[in-house]
Amino acid sequence: MDELIKEINKFRDERNWRQYHNPKDLSLSLSLEASELLENFQWLSAEEGAEKNRQNIEEELADVFIYGLMMADDLGIDMEEAILRKLEKNREKYPK
Amino acid sequence: MDELIKEINKFRDERNWRQYHNPKDLSLSLSLEASELLENFQWLSAEEGAEKNRQNIEEELADVFIYGLMMADDLGIDMEEAILRKLEKNREKYPK
Amino acid sequence: MDELIKEINKFRDERNWRQYHNPKDLSLSLSLEASELLENFQWLSAEEGAEKNRQNIEEELADVFIYGLMMADDLGIDMEEAILRKLEKNREKYPK
Amino acid sequence: MDELIKEINKFRDERNWRQYHNPKDLSLSLSLEASELLENFQWLSAEEGAEKNRQNIEEELADVFIYGLMMADDLGIDMEEAILRKLEKNREKYPK
Repeated sequence: MDELIKEINKFRDERNWRQYHNPKDLSLSLSLEASELLENFQWLSAEEGAEKNRQNIEEELADVFIYGLMMADDLGIDMEEAILRKLEKNREKYPK
Repeated sequence: MDELIKEINKFRDERNWRQYHNPKDLSLSLSLEASELLENFQWLSAEEGAEKNRQNIEEELADVFIYGLMMADDLGIDMEEAILRKLEKNREKYPK
Repeated sequence: MDELIKEINKFRDERNWRQYHNPKDLSLSLSLEASELLENFQWLSAEEGAEKNRQNIEEELADVFIYGLMMADDLGIDMEEAILRKLEKNREKYPK
Repeated sequence: MDELIKEINKFRDERNWRQYHNPKDLSLSLSLEASELLENFQWLSAEEGAEKNRQNIEEELADVFIYGLMMADDLGIDMEEAILRKLEKNREKYPK
């Protein structure tokens, strides 16, 4: 993911956008992108949505990850470690 | 990310949870986790939320990524490529 | 609100849309409209958003209420009573 | 709805909460409540969720309306008129 974060930071630095990227507004934007992702299934079954809107699903999912990686980088969170730690916690919460 | 996906799939397979994981319900859950992430900033400034709720922000962000990686894997989406493609598209939409 | 519900039901009956209106998909749509409402404040302060997007705020808020009233009517919930009951509960939870 | 708005305003004035109620944070809270409403259908069918979580659905729906009515009142929006106007616009967009 380090390579991705480098690319994402390059993108926002070239546009001088970091000034807008406080964690509250990044989190708000991530939530809006998650809704746009979900919109691909509005009034549709899972199968219909996944088939009809494949391209947009991929793009909205990418937007969710881009905002998430910006937020993690700004807050000094290592997402790989965070994911592994959360899986560990879930393993304890929901034993096999 | 391949290693993370392997861990995530192992987690859900050990609990026999793939039967619930259609893309509509995964997308719905991702959106709920994005809201729980945002809740860390409810009635707070960006700074207050980031400081007060650092631990929970990390965990909710991890949940967003876990659902996102499940969804991508189920739909055959390579997230690294999807992110790079989306950045390229954004570069064209928002020129420097 | 009875008059509003009558108008809303007339609207969906004339289009034969009730077949799609199960409470899960209505709730999903209400959540999407709530995000479109919130989008009016993305990257903006409360004042900037309220001034710049007054018209859209009114329309998205109306969409939230329309889906909410459909859902309430379908589930036999009297929204006026539900709101008063919730205020009573909140009064107990947050004493003056 | 005038009576409801009066009750809601009394509730927040008694707690001196209007200072927090700018339209951006009210819209953010409305969106969080809409997600809590949707959570009643997570991993469940529409029927299962509606039956199992009837009480919570009613309460979260009430929270959505309470935030919506606060926001409308603060912005000088008459919700009844706004809903009727939106239905009229929808009638033009989706002819019978």
